[in-house]
Amino acid sequence: MSSDPLANKAQAWSALFSEPMSELVQRYTASVGFDQRLWRADIDGSLAHADMLAAQGIIGAQDLGDIQRGLAQIAGEIESGAFTWKLELEDVHLNIEARLTELVGPAGKRLHTGRSRNDQVATDVRLWLRGEIDGLAGLLTGMQRALVSLAAQHTTTVMPGFTHLQVAQPVSFAHHLLAYVEMFARDADRLADVRKRVNVLPLGAAALAGTSYPLDRERVARTLGFDGVCQNSLDAVSDRDFALEFAAWASICMVHVSRLAEEIVLWMSQNFGFIDLADRYCTGSSIMPQKRNPDVAELARGKSGRVVGHLMGLLTLMKGQPMTYNKDNQEDKEPLFDTVDTLRDTLRIMAEMAGGIVVKADAMERAAMRGYATATDLADYLVKKGLPFRDAHEAVAHAVKVAIQRGVDLAELPLADLQTFNPAIEADVAEVLTLQGSMGARRVLGGTAPEQVRAQVERHRARLGG
Amino acid sequence: MSSDPLANKAQAWSALFSEPMSELVQRYTASVGFDQRLWRADIDGSLAHADMLAAQGIIGAQDLGDIQRGLAQIAGEIESGAFTWKLELEDVHLNIEARLTELVGPAGKRLHTGRSRNDQVATDVRLWLRGEIDGLAGLLTGMQRALVSLAAQHTTTVMPGFTHLQVAQPVSFAHHLLAYVEMFARDADRLADVRKRVNVLPLGAAALAGTSYPLDRERVARTLGFDGVCQNSLDAVSDRDFALEFAAWASICMVHVSRLAEEIVLWMSQNFGFIDLADRYCTGSSIMPQKRNPDVAELARGKSGRVVGHLMGLLTLMKGQPMTYNKDNQEDKEPLFDTVDTLRDTLRIMAEMAGGIVVKADAMERAAMRGYATATDLADYLVKKGLPFRDAHEAVAHAVKVAIQRGVDLAELPLADLQTFNPAIEADVAEVLTLQGSMGARRVLGGTAPEQVRAQVERHRARLGG
Amino acid sequence: MSSDPLANKAQAWSALFSEPMSELVQRYTASVGFDQRLWRADIDGSLAHADMLAAQGIIGAQDLGDIQRGLAQIAGEIESGAFTWKLELEDVHLNIEARLTELVGPAGKRLHTGRSRNDQVATDVRLWLRGEIDGLAGLLTGMQRALVSLAAQHTTTVMPGFTHLQVAQPVSFAHHLLAYVEMFARDADRLADVRKRVNVLPLGAAALAGTSYPLDRERVARTLGFDGVCQNSLDAVSDRDFALEFAAWASICMVHVSRLAEEIVLWMSQNFGFIDLADRYCTGSSIMPQKRNPDVAELARGKSGRVVGHLMGLLTLMKGQPMTYNKDNQEDKEPLFDTVDTLRDTLRIMAEMAGGIVVKADAMERAAMRGYATATDLADYLVKKGLPFRDAHEAVAHAVKVAIQRGVDLAELPLADLQTFNPAIEADVAEVLTLQGSMGARRVLGGTAPEQVRAQVERHRARLGG
Amino acid sequence: MSSDPLANKAQAWSALFSEPMSELVQRYTASVGFDQRLWRADIDGSLAHADMLAAQGIIGAQDLGDIQRGLAQIAGEIESGAFTWKLELEDVHLNIEARLTELVGPAGKRLHTGRSRNDQVATDVRLWLRGEIDGLAGLLTGMQRALVSLAAQHTTTVMPGFTHLQVAQPVSFAHHLLAYVEMFARDADRLADVRKRVNVLPLGAAALAGTSYPLDRERVARTLGFDGVCQNSLDAVSDRDFALEFAAWASICMVHVSRLAEEIVLWMSQNFGFIDLADRYCTGSSIMPQKRNPDVAELARGKSGRVVGHLMGLLTLMKGQPMTYNKDNQEDKEPLFDTVDTLRDTLRIMAEMAGGIVVKADAMERAAMRGYATATDLADYLVKKGLPFRDAHEAVAHAVKVAIQRGVDLAELPLADLQTFNPAIEADVAEVLTLQGSMGARRVLGGTAPEQVRAQVERHRARLGG
Repeated sequence: MSSDPLANKAQAWSALFSEPMSELVQRYTASVGFDQRLWRADIDGSLAHADMLAAQGIIGAQDLGDIQRGLAQIAGEIESGAFTWKLELEDVHLNIEARLTELVGPAGKRLHTGRSRNDQVATDVRLWLRGEIDGLAGLLTGMQRALVSLAAQHTTTVMPGFTHLQVAQPVSFAHHLLAYVEMFARDADRLADVRKRVNVLPLGAAALAGTSYPLDRERVARTLGFDGVCQNSLDAVSDRDFALEFAAWASICMVHVSRLAEEIVLWMSQNFGFIDLADRYCTGSSIMPQKRNPDVAELARGKSGRVVGHLMGLLTLMKGQPMTYNKDNQEDKEPLFDTVDTLRDTLRIMAEMAGGIVVKADAMERAAMRGYATATDLADYLVKKGLPFRDAHEAVAHAVKVAIQRGVDLAELPLADLQTFNPAIEADVAEVLTLQGSMGARRVLGGTAPEQVRAQVERHRARLGG
Repeated sequence: MSSDPLANKAQAWSALFSEPMSELVQRYTASVGFDQRLWRADIDGSLAHADMLAAQGIIGAQDLGDIQRGLAQIAGEIESGAFTWKLELEDVHLNIEARLTELVGPAGKRLHTGRSRNDQVATDVRLWLRGEIDGLAGLLTGMQRALVSLAAQHTTTVMPGFTHLQVAQPVSFAHHLLAYVEMFARDADRLADVRKRVNVLPLGAAALAGTSYPLDRERVARTLGFDGVCQNSLDAVSDRDFALEFAAWASICMVHVSRLAEEIVLWMSQNFGFIDLADRYCTGSSIMPQKRNPDVAELARGKSGRVVGHLMGLLTLMKGQPMTYNKDNQEDKEPLFDTVDTLRDTLRIMAEMAGGIVVKADAMERAAMRGYATATDLADYLVKKGLPFRDAHEAVAHAVKVAIQRGVDLAELPLADLQTFNPAIEADVAEVLTLQGSMGARRVLGGTAPEQVRAQVERHRARLGG
Repeated sequence: MSSDPLANKAQAWSALFSEPMSELVQRYTASVGFDQRLWRADIDGSLAHADMLAAQGIIGAQDLGDIQRGLAQIAGEIESGAFTWKLELEDVHLNIEARLTELVGPAGKRLHTGRSRNDQVATDVRLWLRGEIDGLAGLLTGMQRALVSLAAQHTTTVMPGFTHLQVAQPVSFAHHLLAYVEMFARDADRLADVRKRVNVLPLGAAALAGTSYPLDRERVARTLGFDGVCQNSLDAVSDRDFALEFAAWASICMVHVSRLAEEIVLWMSQNFGFIDLADRYCTGSSIMPQKRNPDVAELARGKSGRVVGHLMGLLTLMKGQPMTYNKDNQEDKEPLFDTVDTLRDTLRIMAEMAGGIVVKADAMERAAMRGYATATDLADYLVKKGLPFRDAHEAVAHAVKVAIQRGVDLAELPLADLQTFNPAIEADVAEVLTLQGSMGARRVLGGTAPEQVRAQVERHRARLGG
Repeated sequence: MSSDPLANKAQAWSALFSEPMSELVQRYTASVGFDQRLWRADIDGSLAHADMLAAQGIIGAQDLGDIQRGLAQIAGEIESGAFTWKLELEDVHLNIEARLTELVGPAGKRLHTGRSRNDQVATDVRLWLRGEIDGLAGLLTGMQRALVSLAAQHTTTVMPGFTHLQVAQPVSFAHHLLAYVEMFARDADRLADVRKRVNVLPLGAAALAGTSYPLDRERVARTLGFDGVCQNSLDAVSDRDFALEFAAWASICMVHVSRLAEEIVLWMSQNFGFIDLADRYCTGSSIMPQKRNPDVAELARGKSGRVVGHLMGLLTLMKGQPMTYNKDNQEDKEPLFDTVDTLRDTLRIMAEMAGGIVVKADAMERAAMRGYATATDLADYLVKKGLPFRDAHEAVAHAVKVAIQRGVDLAELPLADLQTFNPAIEADVAEVLTLQGSMGARRVLGGTAPEQVRAQVERHRARLGG
């Protein structure tokens, strides 16, 4: 047997154990198959821990040097694919530690001083997640820029604004796109809030109760760029709020994606025909030769389920767990990893695809002509002539009813006929009943008038830089 | 027929409609049964809107006065229970507006100028939710204070710290309680972040596109205490992020509650017997005369499901909705209301009950004596004598195995026997193997040593005030 | 103090308790506010229990008579609204039992012999749910009949069949509607399976371990129409599978409803314009006078979230509960009740509304003309002329590309031009390229050819009766 | 370019497309990374389809032979790992079809006649899932057998039965285990119901509308062992009920697993100490040398979250999807696959571990002595002496109160003292107050009396065979 206890794990967990884990148990409980993606965070964390142990005099300079050398070699091996991950070493932590001891001897066995896998894994995941959050923040900026850039070209492109998917009032395509910019801006804001609470250091909590070694936790936090340290060791090792909060963030963000995706699918449908997508974002059918399908948008919409499912899985996971670390917590990783992957791919591809949207302005405008989109304008016109709003609303309802019966638009009703609904209607009503007139009139802050929307485009550009 | 179109809704929605809603449809689509709880927010919003309409010259001073007078009377009627809610008026908004017109005539019909129920309901819910958030923040403070207050009395009360529900290392009961204080402190922090995004004004978005009236949205925001205004009208009426984000907050908070509740149930179980609860927090059994059950903790744990379910419901609700307002959104209210109610009751009762916990320090200490809780201390002792940690760990595993075979604690093994596991062990090991010695040694920041925990108690007291 | 211990609950739970529940605890733990809807099941269960107690000689004939008389009076009081529900009596069971003792004295205090609220509530809920399941089964039949009846009128009404919301191939509106009949038929099948497992009697399990009284559980089961008795008393009082399974059923059913609702919303949108709904199923807008919104379909779609949320809540509730009854289980009721209510209202209103659909066959056919819906038919035509399918698919892709460039349909390409894509194309291709030709050709079992669809209509009619 | 259109997919989807999919889109939309596990079902389905095409004269005997030969070779290549899966061929279907054409030429291009990937994938998944269901049914039997076998040894081993995790009444460990047998038996029953609805053939629905080829769908169904064929082609390609229903089944089953796991964790905790697990089911700690953790049970409990999350993901996925196939549906696979894997591993390992449980009967009995577990028996004793149950309950509550004050068990109160609570108490009460007396008295069907439990063991053995 090796003098390294870890090297003997295939025989038994430790001297306390009389038999090895059953093969099925080993496979069931091992996490190295998925947690190896934490390797760089694990090494960075170990380096910071070793540096502090040496600074505090807990290990010697020689040990530190050995550890640094060994971990550098391991990083190289992992990067090059030469590293052999072993199932019987359970997880990324023991795999790296065992290899370190193999490479540098006793120093490797000293690295774990004052540390437990419980605080180590919590540190690794937070470190890794912080990096991913920063990447996602960049992708959210990219998504917003793509939408703002498209919007900038369409501040006067009229489309029907819908409520209940019924034509409601004319809006510009730019205004519609900027609604999504607001959503993704909130997502960015929320993500920054999540980051604050992720970026706190658990290391030093050891197994659960802290340690008797004179660790300098704040030094480790500084080395690793953490904003602070967890103030309670029990909480430090059992808390998975960062996963829950991130998954909740991701679910809300994917709800926004799913709404945009739904609209892209609608707009691509022949019955809307508002946009086209470049061929590189479409796929065909194995049987129907004419098909060009907006697969990316559909998949993105579908993937909202995946992410919401992960959130629910994580909440169920944590529900009712007593203190402190329980093995259940190992189940936090796969949903978290998959959530990050899904968000990263989806935000990137949606932003790219948004840049490839071809706008069919004519079809949008034609659609806005259906559905009496300027009826509210007529009511507002009457209010300005002195009618209480409720009475104006009722008068216009009468007018719309007649127009429907005649199969014409409100603008096509003769002035004399309009006046039967209310005598205050005069020739100047014509401008009010046009799509452009309606849109231009909504100059209130946040409204769809081109000048307002252009101002919003500028605001977003200033905000987003780039 | 009345001259108020709203008064005729039982006949038909408006002149456009040829028949009334079917009775079943009316019942299915009406929200007044549950949204009437928004009445005060609705009236406050209407007062701010009317004030602004008058300031902008859109309605006259007389109209404003009438509206103020009418709404004051309605507020009184609702408070006294004299107000008659009508199902055929669908929701809180039309009920109040119709009554207003009944009371003050034309001014009532002018109130809705430049406004739609779409932006009105979004405003009402945000206003109401902001108030509830402030109440919940207070309850979170109360919960933390109750736990800190109990902790302050137990910084030297030893209990077994568990991982995997196996005895791990001795910790103080205070340290254990403060882990929950950390959780609720994060909840408070998160809730403040949620509030920022709730407290933004949608009013002025009108139906979806903004309005042609020269509204001063920022004046309304100031009047109502909002931090800002929604910058995109389409987003303003269709966004339900505030509900999603609040429900996610609530779910995470309830996960914390469920964990504390689980522990209270465990601690009350005869097999733990760590605490007792005052009779006023217990219930009996209809059949078993000896039972005193910790019903409150069990229910609180169970209610985590309820809140998580609401979050899931809201996410499903919003998934794939195209712009802008869809009737689906009406379904945001009941889960949101019930979430608020559940959190309010649960936080209040858990804080109160925590105050009534009777600690059985003897039972806690006895339990800490089982399970070789100081084995890690022995390993650390050996490391300080120069052994690499991994070798020390293995030596102690051997010692534990022998102790188990003999049915004794590590402290009960004769020194000579201990030395067979490693000759570096000397007489000074005795102190290391006591619960108090173990606990006192964990002086690292965030550790369980009494001095550390007392410092945390002080930090929390300073932070929480009161 | 009363001689009835229940009458003194306001003072203390029993002699064991030194103080009453705190008012907040009483409110938090009481279920009578919502479980009173179980009153009839509770009384039926008590009558069957008392009848058996008397038959087994455990209570006397006089006691049985008193109990029957008392419960009959209570049923009358509840029906008439004269019954006073008391919060301090916690739940429907104690409320009825206390009133019974008030009315008939000692016999009332004997009713609970060999019974606990744990098995009583499980029995009540199963009894009640069984009744609701039978009602829902009827509503599912109604829904299917409504759809079949509409389908029967539209076996030759052509509409575009969609995949990816892109025009794919022409189908009949009948065929489309019958897809939903299949879904609701599966729901009915599944519901019958759920019923089997709901309809099993827990009573006799007492608190958890069974009872020492010589109960005849099978007699009670027969009296109440249960198919069998729970075979393990611990499982009987702690099992909530019936709620989980029912909620899962409801969620799947609501997914079907949400899909149909989504399509009704799409079809009502001016950009589709495939159908109209009678005014009684539509609502207007408080601001836009022209609006007629398909609120019912939107709400039904939204309510899928509510039901899915309840399922999630129930699963979270049960996760990790140790044996046997825990107070958490009280939280099973509200989601279950609300799920039943939602399904009942939604199935009824959707069936009614489906009957009120006005089909715009012209718009459907026009839409089917867009999108090269018969391209697959051309490929199949070529296969029948001997081409391998993959080559035929590619030849038609070429043809579609040219047709798109020219802005014409495939049928509008001159034969000579078609022949450039493959010389095997002859004049008989014309029939193949029509919508009717395409639809009529799909005569495979389950296909859209009118004869096939008519056969399905007949099959469903035979199956559904009525 | 190859004459096989599929071979050119890297250039463009078909002649209709002007550019290839972007690399990111290809990666985002491809499913071959995970759906390759369907390869055998895909080949089986293709063989049955080709056999039917030949029998119907749609393809020739030579083509059939070529297809059979080619698919046999492909099966060999996949099994041996020699098959090259190509991302640009998107999924398992196109990968196999392209390879087939490479191997056998034109016959390969004819295989897809009258078929689409839409009905093909639905068929593959159902075929694969049916096989997995059969495997899971076997594992459920194994789980039940393991529990019954352990129970058979413990029909007189007394443990405390809990409600609210408070000692309630004595039960046998066998009785407790058999409660889980009931749960898993229901799971088996439910799974058989799920199988009925999974085992229906979609093939023949083609893209969505059926096909113009004279397919014999029932022949294909017979060949593949399906119970019937989907009766509506639109439903056939868009239905994912089988995934929803299976995931709901799995969630309920995992709730049962999580409850058993929770109890194993509790029982292993030093504070209960009811059982021990063999070393091969335990893991150690990287820092605490004394730890032996019940990791398997904890992970199994945690994995309930994973499975519930998948169910929620699938429900969200399907919510609101219009007819028929949408790309969203591709997201059904990974959650379904992971659910199957999780259930298979978990049921197997839990059954195996249950077989390795070491019962500590003394600890169980000691625990049952705490908590006045026979108080109900005393009440029942009084009822048999003529007291109404409610009065007996109250008298015993008094007795328990006194016993608690004196720190003794009910059985330890002198008879004279007991008689102060009710004079009807006589010397024969002693037997009533023992654990064995209490347990033995619960002879009602489903009760914990040894004779009852033994009868249940026999019933289960007869039912489960083996």
